[in-house]
Amino acid sequence: MTDDPIYHVDGDLVPASEATVSVDDRGFRYGDAAFETLRAYGGTVFAWDAHLERLERTCEALALEHGLAAADLRERVDETLAANDLADAYVRLSITRGVQPGKLTPAPAVDPTVVVYAKPLPRGGLKGEPVWDGPATVETVETRRVPDESIPAAAKTHNYLNGILARAELEADSDEALLCDLEGRIGEGATSNLFFVRNGTVHTPTTDGPVLPGITREIVLELAREAGIPIREGRYEPAAVRAADEAFLTNRTWELRPIGTLDGRAIGGGPVTDRLARLYDERVERTCYE
Amino acid sequence: MTDDPIYHVDGDLVPASEATVSVDDRGFRYGDAAFETLRAYGGTVFAWDAHLERLERTCEALALEHGLAAADLRERVDETLAANDLADAYVRLSITRGVQPGKLTPAPAVDPTVVVYAKPLPRGGLKGEPVWDGPATVETVETRRVPDESIPAAAKTHNYLNGILARAELEADSDEALLCDLEGRIGEGATSNLFFVRNGTVHTPTTDGPVLPGITREIVLELAREAGIPIREGRYEPAAVRAADEAFLTNRTWELRPIGTLDGRAIGGGPVTDRLARLYDERVERTCYE
Repeated sequence: MTDDPIYHVDGDLVPASEATVSVDDRGFRYGDAAFETLRAYGGTVFAWDAHLERLERTCEALALEHGLAAADLRERVDETLAANDLADAYVRLSITRGVQPGKLTPAPAVDPTVVVYAKPLPRGGLKGEPVWDGPATVETVETRRVPDESIPAAAKTHNYLNGILARAELEADSDEALLCDLEGRIGEGATSNLFFVRNGTVHTPTTDGPVLPGITREIVLELAREAGIPIREGRYEPAAVRAADEAFLTNRTWELRPIGTLDGRAIGGGPVTDRLARLYDERVERTCYE
Repeated sequence: MTDDPIYHVDGDLVPASEATVSVDDRGFRYGDAAFETLRAYGGTVFAWDAHLERLERTCEALALEHGLAAADLRERVDETLAANDLADAYVRLSITRGVQPGKLTPAPAVDPTVVVYAKPLPRGGLKGEPVWDGPATVETVETRRVPDESIPAAAKTHNYLNGILARAELEADSDEALLCDLEGRIGEGATSNLFFVRNGTVHTPTTDGPVLPGITREIVLELAREAGIPIREGRYEPAAVRAADEAFLTNRTWELRPIGTLDGRAIGGGPVTDRLARLYDERVERTCYE
């Protein structure tokens, strides 16, 4: 891996320094694009089927009929990993509605633009190390999560200003902004889902609210269910998290990351967080490294 | 003007077919960019100062300190018009946060990407002709305008999926989607502001709601005030528009465009719409062509 990684743009492998899209691309003009953040462990893309399914749901929400086969998308991801000689990596796969005549209304016929980014990450699994350098410093912010009625939260798109505005509110040394919905209930972090533990029960905001159905979130719930750890999905106020015994964030890259403080109040991980993180590592080890 | 217009990208004049931005540009990755839609009449950019002021307000909302002088931006616009030999034109000016290290949180130091697009339009003013081919067919849609608490409506950004989802709901021959706020009050069209006339009074949704403070909207209100036409800014339900004597949409390109039907119900322009359109044409004629 050099300082100039190789990206996969519109079917070609190109150095990042030359990887471009047209300024007429709707991905640039309007953020009219779907994406997924993937993680490869030991050369294997983790939970590929789940990512593919969510990508399709996003494209359906955007009425973006890209016409690309799943195998084609996977091949582009694999070619990008190979071109960069990467086994343990962060991968981002984006599909835009491409260039269309200069009006906002999308045309049904789509010539999509597909971009695959990759960059190295540490090994994961049981012998791995976290990508983060410590528990997260988290703040609740004033910016409210965009409601489903405006843009469905289940769609993972290039319209990311809501999260950027949230992050821009943070103190310089904070790691993540926690966004509430318009009623003041917790939605999610700018790039993560939230969990907290109280009296042995794992709580997380329901995806009935404006919450992206994170794939790591889903796996953590599944692991908790299998291990007999009580789980509850609901609507919570930030005070419930601040009073929790343990709390952590999840996303594809971070996996499970304990929350050190929320709004300056210490929370931290603990036995349930550690157990779930261990189960997650075992899952990664078993499905990707064995 | 050839089939391959000239754009202004990051300081250079380039053919549109070669006009690109990095796939790492935050404008592409996140829609993290501000823009303005301008109109040049007879070589003069109309209401430049108002556009510049709104652009600055957008950049403030995004904490995007681009560091570019107003004269520099104006020069890029003028160079683009000259390179395409255009006097009457649509112009789009975009400023992105540029390429930054691959994390969502914006870095304070910005190397912005500036893109200027231009394309020909008919002459405007008293001797001009409208760009539209008839009154607009308009539908109210289910998609709700993003609330100010999530992304300020006053910010004109590349996060345009809310309008795209609204437009995607339309019947094929409809021109514009009318978005309501979460309480069911009219906000605005996907790319336009709405006005309606009842008993001689001009009504338009207040910018206290999730409504972009359109510059054409502001000029129309000013012209009405000067002409002694009563105006009211408020919160209205779609039924009030459907029951109106006249209704029209405004944006930079359309200027004033009568609403032919809303949800299948005939409305149309009328004497107040015609008078305001005439006053608008006079303003354009006087400030740009004389």
